Amino acid sequence: MTRHLYLKTTDIDEAKRIYNNALADILKTPKIETIPTQQAYGRVVAKAIYAKRSSPFYPSAAMDGIMIDAKKTQGANEHHPLILDPLDYVEIDTGDPVLDPYDAVIMAEDCIKTDYGIQIIKAHVPWENVRPIGEDIVEGELLFTVNHVLRPMDISVLMAAGQLEINVFKQVRLAIIPTGTEIIEAHAHPQLGDIIESNSYLFKGMALEAKADVERFPILKDDYDLIVNTLDKAADDFDVICINAGSSAGREDFTSKAIQSLGEVYVHGLAIKPGKPAILGRIRSTPVIGIPGFPVSAHIVFSEFVVPLLYQLNHLPQAKVDYVDAISTKRIVSSLKYKEYIRVKLGQVNDRIVASPLARGAGVMMSVVRSDGYALIDQNSEGIEMNEKVVVRLNPGHHDFKQSLVMIGSHDMMIDVAQDFLAQHSPEHFISSSHVGSFGGLMALKRKECHLAPIHLLGSDGIYNQEALLQLFKADEVVLIKGIQRIQGLLVAKGNPLNIKSIEDLPRVHYVNRQRGAGTRVLLDHLLKEKKMDPTSIKGYEHELSTHLAVASAIQNKSADCGMGVYSAAQTMGCDFIEIAEEAYDFACRVEDLNHPSVIRFIQVLKDPEFQASVLALGGYRFDQAGEVKTIGR
Amino acid sequence: MTRHLYLKTTDIDEAKRIYNNALADILKTPKIETIPTQQAYGRVVAKAIYAKRSSPFYPSAAMDGIMIDAKKTQGANEHHPLILDPLDYVEIDTGDPVLDPYDAVIMAEDCIKTDYGIQIIKAHVPWENVRPIGEDIVEGELLFTVNHVLRPMDISVLMAAGQLEINVFKQVRLAIIPTGTEIIEAHAHPQLGDIIESNSYLFKGMALEAKADVERFPILKDDYDLIVNTLDKAADDFDVICINAGSSAGREDFTSKAIQSLGEVYVHGLAIKPGKPAILGRIRSTPVIGIPGFPVSAHIVFSEFVVPLLYQLNHLPQAKVDYVDAISTKRIVSSLKYKEYIRVKLGQVNDRIVASPLARGAGVMMSVVRSDGYALIDQNSEGIEMNEKVVVRLNPGHHDFKQSLVMIGSHDMMIDVAQDFLAQHSPEHFISSSHVGSFGGLMALKRKECHLAPIHLLGSDGIYNQEALLQLFKADEVVLIKGIQRIQGLLVAKGNPLNIKSIEDLPRVHYVNRQRGAGTRVLLDHLLKEKKMDPTSIKGYEHELSTHLAVASAIQNKSADCGMGVYSAAQTMGCDFIEIAEEAYDFACRVEDLNHPSVIRFIQVLKDPEFQASVLALGGYRFDQAGEVKTIGR
Repeated sequence: MTRHLYLKTTDIDEAKRIYNNALADILKTPKIETIPTQQAYGRVVAKAIYAKRSSPFYPSAAMDGIMIDAKKTQGANEHHPLILDPLDYVEIDTGDPVLDPYDAVIMAEDCIKTDYGIQIIKAHVPWENVRPIGEDIVEGELLFTVNHVLRPMDISVLMAAGQLEINVFKQVRLAIIPTGTEIIEAHAHPQLGDIIESNSYLFKGMALEAKADVERFPILKDDYDLIVNTLDKAADDFDVICINAGSSAGREDFTSKAIQSLGEVYVHGLAIKPGKPAILGRIRSTPVIGIPGFPVSAHIVFSEFVVPLLYQLNHLPQAKVDYVDAISTKRIVSSLKYKEYIRVKLGQVNDRIVASPLARGAGVMMSVVRSDGYALIDQNSEGIEMNEKVVVRLNPGHHDFKQSLVMIGSHDMMIDVAQDFLAQHSPEHFISSSHVGSFGGLMALKRKECHLAPIHLLGSDGIYNQEALLQLFKADEVVLIKGIQRIQGLLVAKGNPLNIKSIEDLPRVHYVNRQRGAGTRVLLDHLLKEKKMDPTSIKGYEHELSTHLAVASAIQNKSADCGMGVYSAAQTMGCDFIEIAEEAYDFACRVEDLNHPSVIRFIQVLKDPEFQASVLALGGYRFDQAGEVKTIGR
Repeated sequence: MTRHLYLKTTDIDEAKRIYNNALADILKTPKIETIPTQQAYGRVVAKAIYAKRSSPFYPSAAMDGIMIDAKKTQGANEHHPLILDPLDYVEIDTGDPVLDPYDAVIMAEDCIKTDYGIQIIKAHVPWENVRPIGEDIVEGELLFTVNHVLRPMDISVLMAAGQLEINVFKQVRLAIIPTGTEIIEAHAHPQLGDIIESNSYLFKGMALEAKADVERFPILKDDYDLIVNTLDKAADDFDVICINAGSSAGREDFTSKAIQSLGEVYVHGLAIKPGKPAILGRIRSTPVIGIPGFPVSAHIVFSEFVVPLLYQLNHLPQAKVDYVDAISTKRIVSSLKYKEYIRVKLGQVNDRIVASPLARGAGVMMSVVRSDGYALIDQNSEGIEMNEKVVVRLNPGHHDFKQSLVMIGSHDMMIDVAQDFLAQHSPEHFISSSHVGSFGGLMALKRKECHLAPIHLLGSDGIYNQEALLQLFKADEVVLIKGIQRIQGLLVAKGNPLNIKSIEDLPRVHYVNRQRGAGTRVLLDHLLKEKKMDPTSIKGYEHELSTHLAVASAIQNKSADCGMGVYSAAQTMGCDFIEIAEEAYDFACRVEDLNHPSVIRFIQVLKDPEFQASVLALGGYRFDQAGEVKTIGR
């Protein structure tokens, strides 16, 4: 086992400084190419461009009418109309040349036709209604300076000005090289241990946004010579190389050694999390960046190092990054050794922008997809307290989170259906939902961090959702918006091979549980108590997953024999289902938020027959009082 | 002559309402296509997408280390290290499967190698350092709703989730059909009367920004049958057609009739200026828009009608349009019959955002290029007074005008050189210059509408720029920043065929003049007075152009025999030059603006040897005290 267990990590700003210095000669030597103007949309002018010809290049009629020598119109006015001799004028259209002996145009609207010629009632001065040469573009004038990014209107002007080929900065060519013996293409059939290559599609899209010309290489095996040869060749053909991954310090992490053998490695290891095992190097005139394998790490390192470099080499102004201050809904513990990038969801509740941290695992790309941005925790901070201010770097193209309907609590697939329904019918009402279980949702509602808390909590009185609310809120503070009646049950493998019938069968099988605070967990515990069963008698009671689908998936994949969840999850994953109880899945809401436009809209959706039909199609649901607003308590 | 002189014009908002209603069935019927996910960057989801497989799809190691049955680690702590039996663990790398009987991973950093096996000092719980199945993506979970615009991170997630082909809204296909017998391609050699086709390049770029798939047709002659046949065929093959131009009411304006013969015309003529002669029609299921020929009209109609339609049909959210309130530096007269679009340049002077109107001709595309946006004057307004508030619709991708160095006054090519120099060395200092002549510049400075007024005004005492300043300002209010000494002279055709020697020769030739208020005009008038010559004795005295280059261009194009201007303009246009006088071209500046960062930077540029060398290379210039700040008066 030859591992270099610890990478020496470098502070991210220091790493940027080191790498910029190391690449100074490359950054200072612009590459220029001559291209046809018609292909130059969005390209950057490398040398000042002057007009090659005037537009118009002859004096021309500014409107339809007749051209005439202005002197011949003198004296005409409303009291003394003048009839022009047909020999003195010529009928013309807009854009026609106005040449000697003519020097003015009378517009068609001012021409009255008579038998003797055209009658006018207004004298004209020379050059009236005539566009002089160069009215638009004058030959020799400066059109665009260096570093100007060419817009559509600029291209049309360049074509009119006779500049059909121009000098622009060369478009950066980026090589993306995926590596790893265990890595396979997405279209291959994955076997146990295979990892599907998906990072390159992230890189490619981000590089295209930075206007790079991208080539994605076939996946390389972890073979040192193969990697060296590929890098060597690519350094000749490309302006920037990204190699993914092998940038860690594991047994088969050859990347750093390979770059070193051909050029130089300036930084190996960043003091950021996720994103630590990155490499900043160079082979001859080509920057080479080693990107970590976990997708979130990859996203952060590519965003922080590759994207700015592509903009810089393309001579484009850096893409604007937006930041927003928010209040964290959770305590975030952070290491003093790293700057941390915490994915968060944002929402505006009661005039505060709240940031709900999402999963922190470097492998959870969906948390980036679902996030509005990264909360940044400084390297020298131990973290952020709940309700403390945190700076969030917004994702490019993030939606308007101030309009979001923030839901925190238990998850049900009807939320997905509602989200899709809104996206289709009123995209301005975007649902931002975090799944922390029913109790977690109520705590968030208590702290005014969400508009709605979806809950399904069985009370000691056998009634759903009332008791839990009354424990935390005054009766006039909150209401329940009725959601759906749904069937909870035991999910088992297709055909139910272990013949599981009820809760009593659990001690003899492998169970998979939901996390503490989840309504489904509360239901299980309630049932165990009722039946006087000991939770420790159940194998896997401590194995917690956080959604119905994850439980169903664990059963389908044979990680467990049985779990509790809703019918729709069983249906989706092809599990068998043993009905246990019907429960009420409702939405707790503060009274003052009932007037929020997105809450009003959501209530409409709950009552919408089209929406209800889509949910019912999932199976295991029943709408009873959906969308009705109930007060709580006595 | 068969002209329909007057188009019935429709209010623009009313026209949008009419057209939206007329296209309602098209807009309500989305076209969907299935494409490979890897090509779906920026495309819009047409049907909700659920995950096809989990990621990871087996429990996998979250880090490098060993996998073990967690039970076998129980009891280990710092005081009681535990040595693991080599038969109980397997060395693994990140991403490797963790399967029965193993259920935990001990990370490499926590493994101490000994002769008897690995020693650990910490107990592990089941599933520690193991990524559960579906940690990132759970099979069956909703990934993206309808109408979601796919970002790079989304594509990577879809690939990981096994969604290799997806349903997206079909990309709109736009046909751009340029028409006109007098219209020629930009690469052809233009003859008198020819008009170079450049609008299609504007349309194409704007349509590409709206993610349309664009086909530009060859130019069609003004032939009714040809136009009808082309439209008929294009209506089958494309989703939207833009035909340019022939949309006016001139003799050869067939567009409206052609559309009518195949489909319907809903609006012909808009109550906007420029942009009046537009056509909104439809052939079968294809919207057809007739766009006026003048480029500014074309830009406005395309922006107002085609771009929003393309976004709508592509199911993309409309591009954000920014507006800003500004103070108009000029009175803008407007017609009650039209909503007017006035191109303006913006700048921030003394905490006010000032808008300087540019040329209003519908043919002056450079005024759009040079503008920051359009000031919008309502249809029912007679215009805007000087210093009145006006709403400006900003151009997409406009630069940060709050940073601009606003220069209003006389133009010299050294300003172009300075602009290019700044773009190269400090692009944050952008020069926004308007050319209104020296006097116009001083009036703007008086009204605090610019930072610098470039002037060259000969005083009655024979000294430049002092007298004019003292007439308008107190001596301690403004300073002169010394610019350049430049040679003024007479520009004549190459070889001087009319043997022009001096001002005295002007009465026998065709002269072309500069506008009132221009320093060069002041110089001519001064010389005429000195020599007791009568301006009316000079043919073309009333023929005014507004830049040195425009004068040189008129002479090169034989519109005139002689004009006054600077050597560099003569040089650029290949004219001969007869030296008349050397003058001082300086920059008037308010004392309080001397601290403005862009003014400070500009003074540095004036003194910069590299900059001076570039200006001197133009010829006819001499730097004397460039960049020195002089007080005025006694």
